[in-house]
Amino acid sequence: MQTTTLNVEGMSCNHCVKAVEGAVKEAGAQGTVDLGAKTVDVSYDEATVSLDAIKAAIEDQGYDVV
Amino acid sequence: MQTTTLNVEGMSCNHCVKAVEGAVKEAGAQGTVDLGAKTVDVSYDEATVSLDAIKAAIEDQGYDVV
Repeated sequence: MQTTTLNVEGMSCNHCVKAVEGAVKEAGAQGTVDLGAKTVDVSYDEATVSLDAIKAAIEDQGYDVV
Repeated sequence: MQTTTLNVEGMSCNHCVKAVEGAVKEAGAQGTVDLGAKTVDVSYDEATVSLDAIKAAIEDQGYDVV
């Protein structure tokens, strides 16, 4: 299992938290948003999902992974 | 038909817009959010829904009508 912290711009409310965490989950990983820090802690299995796919899932929701 | 503009705190993104407009609609009225102005223009029929009920519907979503 890999873990990393992504910096994500544009998350402003609890709806955003749910949208981002839901997208990460749908991609096959686990994500936890820290709204104040503008970060998403993700954990994932490299064998089943790439970090690029997780980033793409977040960006598809309209947020910028920086 | 009555129309009024409510000042609403806490709306920060398009998810908030949808949540507020949806709540107003469920209450039986029409609402249009201006995110920049922090306002909701509402139109409603006094015979079917009170302004207080519309305000309550918005506050139930976690926003403050000020």
